[in-house]
Amino acid sequence: MATQLFIFTLILISLSGETEAHKLFRTEKHGGSTRFNADPKPQFKEKYFPQIIDHFNFNSMGNGTFDQRYLITDQYWKKGYGPIFFYTGNEGDIWEFALNSGFISELASQQKALVIFAEHRYYGKSLPFGKDSFNIPEVGLLTVEQALADYAVMITELKKDLGAQACPVIVFGGSYGGMLSVYMRVRYPNIVAGALAASAPILSTAGMGDPKQFFRDVTADFENYSPDCRDAVRGAFQRLQTLAQQEDYGRIQTKFSLCKAPSSPKDIHQLNGLLRNAFTLMAMLDYPYSTHFMGSMPAFPVKVACEIMLNGPDLMSSLRDTAGIVYNATGELKCFDLYSLYVECADPTGCGLGFNSYAWDYQACTEIEMCHESNNVTDMFPPMPFTEQQREQYCAKRWGVIPRPGWLKTQYWGDALSTASNIIFSNGDLDPWANGGIRKSLSQSLIAITIPEGAHHLDLRESNPADPASVIKARQTEADIIAQWVKMARQRS
Amino acid sequence: MATQLFIFTLILISLSGETEAHKLFRTEKHGGSTRFNADPKPQFKEKYFPQIIDHFNFNSMGNGTFDQRYLITDQYWKKGYGPIFFYTGNEGDIWEFALNSGFISELASQQKALVIFAEHRYYGKSLPFGKDSFNIPEVGLLTVEQALADYAVMITELKKDLGAQACPVIVFGGSYGGMLSVYMRVRYPNIVAGALAASAPILSTAGMGDPKQFFRDVTADFENYSPDCRDAVRGAFQRLQTLAQQEDYGRIQTKFSLCKAPSSPKDIHQLNGLLRNAFTLMAMLDYPYSTHFMGSMPAFPVKVACEIMLNGPDLMSSLRDTAGIVYNATGELKCFDLYSLYVECADPTGCGLGFNSYAWDYQACTEIEMCHESNNVTDMFPPMPFTEQQREQYCAKRWGVIPRPGWLKTQYWGDALSTASNIIFSNGDLDPWANGGIRKSLSQSLIAITIPEGAHHLDLRESNPADPASVIKARQTEADIIAQWVKMARQRS
Repeated sequence: MATQLFIFTLILISLSGETEAHKLFRTEKHGGSTRFNADPKPQFKEKYFPQIIDHFNFNSMGNGTFDQRYLITDQYWKKGYGPIFFYTGNEGDIWEFALNSGFISELASQQKALVIFAEHRYYGKSLPFGKDSFNIPEVGLLTVEQALADYAVMITELKKDLGAQACPVIVFGGSYGGMLSVYMRVRYPNIVAGALAASAPILSTAGMGDPKQFFRDVTADFENYSPDCRDAVRGAFQRLQTLAQQEDYGRIQTKFSLCKAPSSPKDIHQLNGLLRNAFTLMAMLDYPYSTHFMGSMPAFPVKVACEIMLNGPDLMSSLRDTAGIVYNATGELKCFDLYSLYVECADPTGCGLGFNSYAWDYQACTEIEMCHESNNVTDMFPPMPFTEQQREQYCAKRWGVIPRPGWLKTQYWGDALSTASNIIFSNGDLDPWANGGIRKSLSQSLIAITIPEGAHHLDLRESNPADPASVIKARQTEADIIAQWVKMARQRS
Repeated sequence: MATQLFIFTLILISLSGETEAHKLFRTEKHGGSTRFNADPKPQFKEKYFPQIIDHFNFNSMGNGTFDQRYLITDQYWKKGYGPIFFYTGNEGDIWEFALNSGFISELASQQKALVIFAEHRYYGKSLPFGKDSFNIPEVGLLTVEQALADYAVMITELKKDLGAQACPVIVFGGSYGGMLSVYMRVRYPNIVAGALAASAPILSTAGMGDPKQFFRDVTADFENYSPDCRDAVRGAFQRLQTLAQQEDYGRIQTKFSLCKAPSSPKDIHQLNGLLRNAFTLMAMLDYPYSTHFMGSMPAFPVKVACEIMLNGPDLMSSLRDTAGIVYNATGELKCFDLYSLYVECADPTGCGLGFNSYAWDYQACTEIEMCHESNNVTDMFPPMPFTEQQREQYCAKRWGVIPRPGWLKTQYWGDALSTASNIIFSNGDLDPWANGGIRKSLSQSLIAITIPEGAHHLDLRESNPADPASVIKARQTEADIIAQWVKMARQRS
């Protein structure tokens, strides 16, 4: 098990913004990647679009623009005719999504599509105010509405520039990006003919979920491996709790290989958050092969974790080694620094690290409702409530904002989707986000797809020999539906 | 004809904001009005809703609110069950619309509806920053998106407060208010089950019209009375032009009863604008009975005008007397003040006067595209171009903003309405706005209704013995469709 520990993890690189390592990481993958099964491999060009800074106020910034990054490849495109596959970028560097959504390029190759991955404002290199973007009030222009308007304007302008006016646009997205693709179809059906929303928790983020759901479903993944695994994790957290009550901070430091001994309940809370977050990530990224998305993961990380939990020398050491899967994949860390590996924020499922985490924290403090709790009854984690009141207090202090519960539901309709059409809601049963989204088809054109062996938007990933049959089938269904949407859009125009 | 001249007009009162006369006017009508045929007469209560000042930025104003005015009556309502008829207020005092949209109350009486008239932000008494609302940058929060969000939030909250969660909402609006009702159904179908958009020029205002259309259609109304009438108007403007070229300003002052002699081409331009605007208003408000909406009008003002034009002592005097129908209905004015009766702005069809005109000017400088021109070829007016370039120059100087052509089309879909449903687009053939809107049904639930004898949203007005059969029929069709929408919405929920 010792090999699991102290392996330096890519999560530090991939979520921390503009480190040199990150640049290398991207450069290395860009172009020469062998990860895609598309034929030929996608060769994205990195470009910038002059985007209006404030779509909803003509006075505040005038018609000032910022440079919004996007990736584009026309290598598969039947110019002027083939559809446009547009990824609605979400909370991170756009290369991360482009390099982990190979299905879109595979599909583009089949359907002769132009492929665009657009970066979300305030993430990656698309910072409207550069290094001042996360100051108050500059951060105020980070909203879902602005992001959608960015995509609407970008698509409209690029279609003109590229002679693509007649080309139907299909939007794609995973997770929050999937939410954005739903919203694009709902909000701009004049621009977008259909949306593939993979693992998009549109209900829970709009305040229509059960606060217990998320960590209950994380727990279920480990329980499904074996109830003993769940019990081991719960037992490990309980032992930690006992030591904490005894204020035996030295022993906690040793057991969890902490760089510095904890010295307060706050530190213990932080340790609990860091440990819980490892399980969150392993559940989300429980793919059947090793991946480099939101950090490095072995194949079947839940299985790997449970094997550690059930075979370690003692529960707390096992818990530490299990966290090491996530935080120390390369084994380079000699100890865990409590406050640099994980940062508590307005999203109890994690905001990541670096600039991108600031942006997501702000979004979780405003429109995106993330009141997920663990309670040790319906899940295996320590009780860590996160109420609307706690959220308000945190957000007022951190960002000077008060959330507006219900706003996202008002804006993007919640479950009142009867007038919407041409949206696929795909979800994997392994994914703790799945039950925050649409699990049953709502009409002939609002189609729910379930991937029983799928983790977080597995269907968006490139084909892999280890893929379960269920994701292969899901992708085929998605391909057929999308081809149909494109055909229908052509007939209408 | 002299009696037509020097009659003081209500346009000065009704469009000038908070004069004492205006308050009297409202108080007099409020409650004791005999204008409605509803049974019993509507008894609106005037209330204020604490509305979020900036829906699209959590930082700029925090969650600060302003008092948004609305009128409400539950006298017809089957409480908790009957539908909600919600008027999406447009560019003026909400009482103006409530008192000139009697059909909505008549329908509410039939269909047991709750009636709400909501005032548009920055108009009437709904000023987010009080007297500072039209300063820069305070005016920046005047956008269509903010107004729609106001209505969405207000409906959602009032439904809770009134125990009306199960009550389907139908939105109504005339002119720009009709555009807003279309947008509400397009943008918030989760909240709004259907929209009656009367005389809503959703295409021309989105840059999808012919700049010549509006004044051509104004001209057509007078031409339809008789080609001689059109020729007389054109001839009168030509004589004015000849005098202006001769710089015979004294004679122009006499002929047009101006308080002060013009002294420059700018003054002549202003006079032309003032005169043309009278024809615009008479064409729009060519109702078969006298009205007090956007000023006082006799029954059939186009006919009245043509009779003056064809029977006056000379063409220029006739043109002056015709303008007097609009500017001097009560005969109290002894002379016309060029710059107080009409103000040139970013909307060549007129912005009105007072605070409300500031707000509309700002909207015409930002989202609403109003590039209407007269040219003396396709219309009877002097050539008065208003190009996108002229608009830009004016708006930059007046408000420090640059319009964003295409934005309204992006936001509200232009003619790409194939995914929309449950909207009635009613238009009258007498209305110069009609051909800027949807004239043919687009689907079974996007229904165009034509009222051959109708001027600007005649169908929204209360029933009147002088109503042509076509508007009676239109209202019946509208009533039937709306009842059907309400029924469908109930079945869905």
